[in-house]
Amino acid sequence: MSKTKIIMDCDPGHDDATAIMMAGMNPQLDLLGITVVKGNQTIEKTTKNTLEVCQTLGLNVPVYEGMSVPMVIPSPQTEERVHGKSGLDGPKFAPLTKKKEKKHAIQFIIETLMASDGDITLVPTGPLTNIAMAMRLEPRIISKIKEIVMMGGSYEHGNVTPSAEFNIYADAEAAYVVFTSGVHITMMGLDITRKALCFPVIVKRMRQHDNPAARLFGDMMDFFIKAQHDTYGWEGAPLHDPTTIAYLIDPSVITTKKMHTDIEIRSTQSYGRTNCDYFNLTDAPKNTSVAIAIDVDKFWDIVEDSIKLYD
Amino acid sequence: MSKTKIIMDCDPGHDDATAIMMAGMNPQLDLLGITVVKGNQTIEKTTKNTLEVCQTLGLNVPVYEGMSVPMVIPSPQTEERVHGKSGLDGPKFAPLTKKKEKKHAIQFIIETLMASDGDITLVPTGPLTNIAMAMRLEPRIISKIKEIVMMGGSYEHGNVTPSAEFNIYADAEAAYVVFTSGVHITMMGLDITRKALCFPVIVKRMRQHDNPAARLFGDMMDFFIKAQHDTYGWEGAPLHDPTTIAYLIDPSVITTKKMHTDIEIRSTQSYGRTNCDYFNLTDAPKNTSVAIAIDVDKFWDIVEDSIKLYD
Amino acid sequence: MSKTKIIMDCDPGHDDATAIMMAGMNPQLDLLGITVVKGNQTIEKTTKNTLEVCQTLGLNVPVYEGMSVPMVIPSPQTEERVHGKSGLDGPKFAPLTKKKEKKHAIQFIIETLMASDGDITLVPTGPLTNIAMAMRLEPRIISKIKEIVMMGGSYEHGNVTPSAEFNIYADAEAAYVVFTSGVHITMMGLDITRKALCFPVIVKRMRQHDNPAARLFGDMMDFFIKAQHDTYGWEGAPLHDPTTIAYLIDPSVITTKKMHTDIEIRSTQSYGRTNCDYFNLTDAPKNTSVAIAIDVDKFWDIVEDSIKLYD
Amino acid sequence: MSKTKIIMDCDPGHDDATAIMMAGMNPQLDLLGITVVKGNQTIEKTTKNTLEVCQTLGLNVPVYEGMSVPMVIPSPQTEERVHGKSGLDGPKFAPLTKKKEKKHAIQFIIETLMASDGDITLVPTGPLTNIAMAMRLEPRIISKIKEIVMMGGSYEHGNVTPSAEFNIYADAEAAYVVFTSGVHITMMGLDITRKALCFPVIVKRMRQHDNPAARLFGDMMDFFIKAQHDTYGWEGAPLHDPTTIAYLIDPSVITTKKMHTDIEIRSTQSYGRTNCDYFNLTDAPKNTSVAIAIDVDKFWDIVEDSIKLYD
Repeated sequence: MSKTKIIMDCDPGHDDATAIMMAGMNPQLDLLGITVVKGNQTIEKTTKNTLEVCQTLGLNVPVYEGMSVPMVIPSPQTEERVHGKSGLDGPKFAPLTKKKEKKHAIQFIIETLMASDGDITLVPTGPLTNIAMAMRLEPRIISKIKEIVMMGGSYEHGNVTPSAEFNIYADAEAAYVVFTSGVHITMMGLDITRKALCFPVIVKRMRQHDNPAARLFGDMMDFFIKAQHDTYGWEGAPLHDPTTIAYLIDPSVITTKKMHTDIEIRSTQSYGRTNCDYFNLTDAPKNTSVAIAIDVDKFWDIVEDSIKLYD
Repeated sequence: MSKTKIIMDCDPGHDDATAIMMAGMNPQLDLLGITVVKGNQTIEKTTKNTLEVCQTLGLNVPVYEGMSVPMVIPSPQTEERVHGKSGLDGPKFAPLTKKKEKKHAIQFIIETLMASDGDITLVPTGPLTNIAMAMRLEPRIISKIKEIVMMGGSYEHGNVTPSAEFNIYADAEAAYVVFTSGVHITMMGLDITRKALCFPVIVKRMRQHDNPAARLFGDMMDFFIKAQHDTYGWEGAPLHDPTTIAYLIDPSVITTKKMHTDIEIRSTQSYGRTNCDYFNLTDAPKNTSVAIAIDVDKFWDIVEDSIKLYD
Repeated sequence: MSKTKIIMDCDPGHDDATAIMMAGMNPQLDLLGITVVKGNQTIEKTTKNTLEVCQTLGLNVPVYEGMSVPMVIPSPQTEERVHGKSGLDGPKFAPLTKKKEKKHAIQFIIETLMASDGDITLVPTGPLTNIAMAMRLEPRIISKIKEIVMMGGSYEHGNVTPSAEFNIYADAEAAYVVFTSGVHITMMGLDITRKALCFPVIVKRMRQHDNPAARLFGDMMDFFIKAQHDTYGWEGAPLHDPTTIAYLIDPSVITTKKMHTDIEIRSTQSYGRTNCDYFNLTDAPKNTSVAIAIDVDKFWDIVEDSIKLYD
Repeated sequence: MSKTKIIMDCDPGHDDATAIMMAGMNPQLDLLGITVVKGNQTIEKTTKNTLEVCQTLGLNVPVYEGMSVPMVIPSPQTEERVHGKSGLDGPKFAPLTKKKEKKHAIQFIIETLMASDGDITLVPTGPLTNIAMAMRLEPRIISKIKEIVMMGGSYEHGNVTPSAEFNIYADAEAAYVVFTSGVHITMMGLDITRKALCFPVIVKRMRQHDNPAARLFGDMMDFFIKAQHDTYGWEGAPLHDPTTIAYLIDPSVITTKKMHTDIEIRSTQSYGRTNCDYFNLTDAPKNTSVAIAIDVDKFWDIVEDSIKLYD
């Protein structure tokens, strides 16, 4: 079986970092590159975090810096409360020697897709700014994308506003571009990612593996669990982004349902909502496979298997 | 213990009719009157249906016809698919002798509240047009309302659009008026009413009681279950509106959570969404107690107890 | 020639008061009643102002108090800066003996229209709350209204926001109801009412007539001219509302153009804009005759003629 | 006096072509390059039209192809009715030998601005897609732009919808980016460009000059005048875009007023409106100098002077 070629597009972030760890050594996945976007933190910090994670894990994957601002809205936000000042507080990293590539993330996305046979899956786990900008700068990439497997949105509650999830809210116009592009999207929304809760007992289990991945995971989660508790009062930290990679490794971990999804960009109150037509009320084309259930035990098994690969 | 004084405001409708049946003979409730609104069907039909239900059940409660159109939006809709051409297809009613009152529903609401000691609960189970119009015509009633226990809205999926539930969507401006009025609202949304599913086995159980309420319930449900199946493909018909009366009879049947809820009236796509701030993301005042769980077994026990009262 | 039957609906206001003065004694107009609405000031003040104007001018016309709040939006505003604390600062009125009618304005509008032969013109010069509420409470009045000649809106600049004029902005949902009702509307917008500027020289001219109307006009305008100057820095005070009555007395004073007009109620930024399709870009039905030019000299002649009738 | 360095960004288009003609030989202007955008027609056609105009006029200016689609909205529109199938119907061009540059328009804009001393004025006369994308891809260019002198918007009537002018409507999100960027904008809206009407007598006057510019102008206007008449029923064709260059050559031809302007992107009905705060109602920062009057005679003199430079 051939490997699934992927480009990860992310804004690490503790959960993005875990997703990179899971994808980096997996024999089923061919990680062509990581593009970085402004999201949880500024582009400088999310790029640095990405490089540090790759260096720590010994991943020889090229990292491309991308958009530093959203497509349209002027006021960027960061998520310091849950990810810390660096955007990836917790681990202590060795001095950074790994360098970002000179090419801009969007240029890498466009060139890689245009040179491909239409067999590349995009895996965005941050705001969709890079992907949307690439689609607009070179519309021909749209037909070259095999699929988009993303983390973002929610058909139930948001986490920034009652309506909206952070990744979509941070750049809803970009999400609008991606969701109306015609590319099929598999969407891991808060509806299931909120159930991928990392508790201390999970951290203990993963730390039993004595390797860089286990240590990185443990150090990150110690901070992340505390931050989630302090911010939201929650026990357990939701590992939103890794659900995408878990799904690519073993689709049976997630149950999805095909439906139409619209992005709200014409309201102030509901800005960034993903209006998922679960009951097919509108007969609009089913542009998304929306995650509606997760097998949590299997998810942690996949995480653990991923960690073991770093032994 | 004194009875809870209520005014029901409804658009029967199979589930409204069941709610009336449950409230009509309950010794804990003092049903002062029923006001009718355009909703599932035209005002002429929903008024007729209300009168027929009362007559069939022998309920000597005054019925007041109310608004025939929404407050602002011009294009009314009916729900013929799930409630039939009459708005209450199924039962065969005896010739109608019960008359509606001459007073307009809004006049009744205003006069009754103004004459009260602030001890009346409003129980709307249709679009909120009557209540909102009354609040605007006589703002002093607002401080006279004890509480509003309503059926409508959803923090998960809608049933008219992906965003919106029928009662709110049918007159979102009215809902906006009510939700910003300052009156505390207990909201039974689709999130829990969708779980109050009436299956044939339930119908069989209720029909064992040989009285007018059991027969009415059975005849209505036979049609309603079939209509829900034909329209949405669902097994089981959701008894949305009776959750309000069940809650008033025994609050323990519903678990609620206090939160702020906004009504979306400035978007076309998300028009009529109830943006419920489940996680208290906005620090806005908690104007609603939103139903988040239902004890389904207890619910059916309450329905059965209500039917028994007609023995 | 038979008189034109009119109901004025207003929120005096210096310019509303002038409109009443112009209509009150005009032999071509049959002023059936004046309904009052919250607008420039609270309903208590605008009602009092209306009664005082009628008493001062010896007008034996019934005055009906109407809506105290807008239909949907919660936060009413007043225009104290340009109309003063009373809503009609300037004149000193004798002790008030004239009483408002007991009937609610909306009830008067509905009953009068329903009893009519479809020959009554409504002349709203404040927010459209009373008219819209009446249309919703009794939709059958819509086909009974001969025409609506109103002051409000703008196809150029607003005066509350860059988009919106005060009367529409103060209750855009009401305006939406009226503009989508099917009744033909002749709309005097800021585009022409801003040209009906009252300068001191005009006041001097009108004061030459030694009668109650001239004195009232003069006392009002002395204040109003000063207030407009202090608030906006304008020389000359725009007599918005009287353009409606001037047009009814002599249509040649205003040039109108038939076009479709939409009311914006789904935007926060542009809330209350009257989108007038001057160039027929949308092929939507031409629901309005929008004023596009005013013969200012003729306008002042009509005002003067109106004043003379009080000799 | 040093020349004013400009980059024109356009979608020719008869009026864009006239603007290029006016700028191309003017001794006061240093035309660094022309970037092309999708607008009146597809990017392929607007680029071809630009090259043909430059070739016909002997202008040795580099032409860069830019965005083929708007930033966010999916459904592009063209203006075939007024500009013909080619986007520049009328003139017969010699076989095209001039080539577009290999660099993308956005890359040219970014590199040129970053290498500059902050002395370059951008002159967009089409949708603002290229400018906005450049601002987002490289936010540091924002402080490098001296000024933007653009054609677009309207504070009175639109020309695509009652609210909106074509250039803004065609990509309102791009306009939003530009108008919120902090760069000062001089905006030539329909309010004055509609007065720059080209009548046959003007064409006759310009054709008296026997040179390529006069012939190009005449051939274009013959078509354009007819198309405006057939489409809108107007006598005279509005030369929207050349007002920007006329203003740069002689600012006294246009009267401007400093005010705040907001772009409406959250409404469907008013999408793309430029809400210009003419009366300073909002106290928001005055980000625009909006054209409020044009000296039409002087405008045509400038056009004629421009044509003479091709003798």
